[in-house]
Amino acid sequence: MIKIGTYSYEEYIHLIESFHGNLAPGLVIGGFMVDLAMKNLPPGDFFDAVCETAVCLPDSIQLLTPCTVGNGWLKVLEFGRFALTLYEKYSGDGVRVYLDVKKMNDWPEIKEWFLKLKPKREQNLQLILNQIKEAGPGLLSLQKVRVEPERLRRPKLGAVAICPVCQEAYPIRDGNACRPCQGESPYL
Amino acid sequence: MIKIGTYSYEEYIHLIESFHGNLAPGLVIGGFMVDLAMKNLPPGDFFDAVCETAVCLPDSIQLLTPCTVGNGWLKVLEFGRFALTLYEKYSGDGVRVYLDVKKMNDWPEIKEWFLKLKPKREQNLQLILNQIKEAGPGLLSLQKVRVEPERLRRPKLGAVAICPVCQEAYPIRDGNACRPCQGESPYL
Repeated sequence: MIKIGTYSYEEYIHLIESFHGNLAPGLVIGGFMVDLAMKNLPPGDFFDAVCETAVCLPDSIQLLTPCTVGNGWLKVLEFGRFALTLYEKYSGDGVRVYLDVKKMNDWPEIKEWFLKLKPKREQNLQLILNQIKEAGPGLLSLQKVRVEPERLRRPKLGAVAICPVCQEAYPIRDGNACRPCQGESPYL
Repeated sequence: MIKIGTYSYEEYIHLIESFHGNLAPGLVIGGFMVDLAMKNLPPGDFFDAVCETAVCLPDSIQLLTPCTVGNGWLKVLEFGRFALTLYEKYSGDGVRVYLDVKKMNDWPEIKEWFLKLKPKREQNLQLILNQIKEAGPGLLSLQKVRVEPERLRRPKLGAVAICPVCQEAYPIRDGNACRPCQGESPYL
C-alpha cells in the first residue's frame, strides 16, 4: 500500500482536496517528496523546512510536517524550483528532494505537465495523476545539503510600538510608523 | 456556544495544536479574526486573503478559509501588523479585521502579551488564553478596504527552461540560469 507520511494515498488525496481546494498534481508529487525527505533525515530532533517554490509545494510541507508558514519553521523562497529541504535547525544539516527532469522520460504526461510542453487545456489531469501515483518516488532525486540556519530563520519581531498614523501595533525596528503607513499599504 | 468558522471552540483549539504544533495565543485570536471577517464579506463568490504579518495569523487563515500559501490565494505581507483582509478577487472590495489595542484595556493579560509589556517567562499563557476566549471578537475592529487584485496576485511562473548549471526546471523569466545558480542559493 502506498503511504504518504502517516496517511494512505487516498487519505492524503482527501486532505489535499480539503486544505488546498483542488487536486493539483504538484500537491500529490509534493506528498511523495516530503515523504522521501522525512525518510532520509540527517540525525537530529528538530527540523525546519525550506521550500524553493511558492507554488503548491508549501502546502504539502505544511500538511505533512510540523513546519508551517505561521509558526516560522517553513521558509518559502520564491525561486520557482520544485524542491524542498528539511534541515536540522541547529547544525543546518539537511536533505534536499527535487523533482528530477532526467527521471521523467518514461512518464510523458508528467513531463508535459511539469515543463509546460503543451497548453493546460490539452493536458489530461487524470492521466497525469495516474502517472504520478505509479511513478511516485521514482521521479525524485535526493541531495545532502547544509544551510546556515540563522540566514533562513524568520527575524524576531522585537519590541512593539503604536503607530502614530493607524494606531495599530507594529515592530519598532521599522521606524517612526508602520510600513503600510510609510507608503507600503496594499489598500487603495 | 462559541463557534470559530464551522468549528466549535474546542475543535478549533485541537486543530491549532495539530497543524501549528503549539497553542499560540495568536492562533486563537486569529480564529476569531477570520470568523469575523467571513461574517462581514462584501458581495461576491471568490475571496482571496492578505495577511499583514508572517507570525501565527497565516495559519488561522489557512485553517479556516480556502486560501493557502501553496494555492496562491493567501498573500503574506511581512508588515508585523496583526491584521488580515479578505477581498473579492475581481473587484478588490474587502473587509479588514485587526486586533485593536484600544479595546484591550479590560484585558490586561492580553495587552501585556500583545504589546510585549513584560518578558514572556513572566506571562501566564493560560490566563492569556482564558481572556482571549472571553473577549473574543470584542478585541477586534473592522474596516472596509479596497485592494488592487493584480498587485497582490502571485505572478504566474510562465515558461519553463532547464537550468544549465543544476539541470532543474526553472522559470525562464529569471534569465539564463535559475536564481539559486545565479548566486541566491541558500545552501553552503
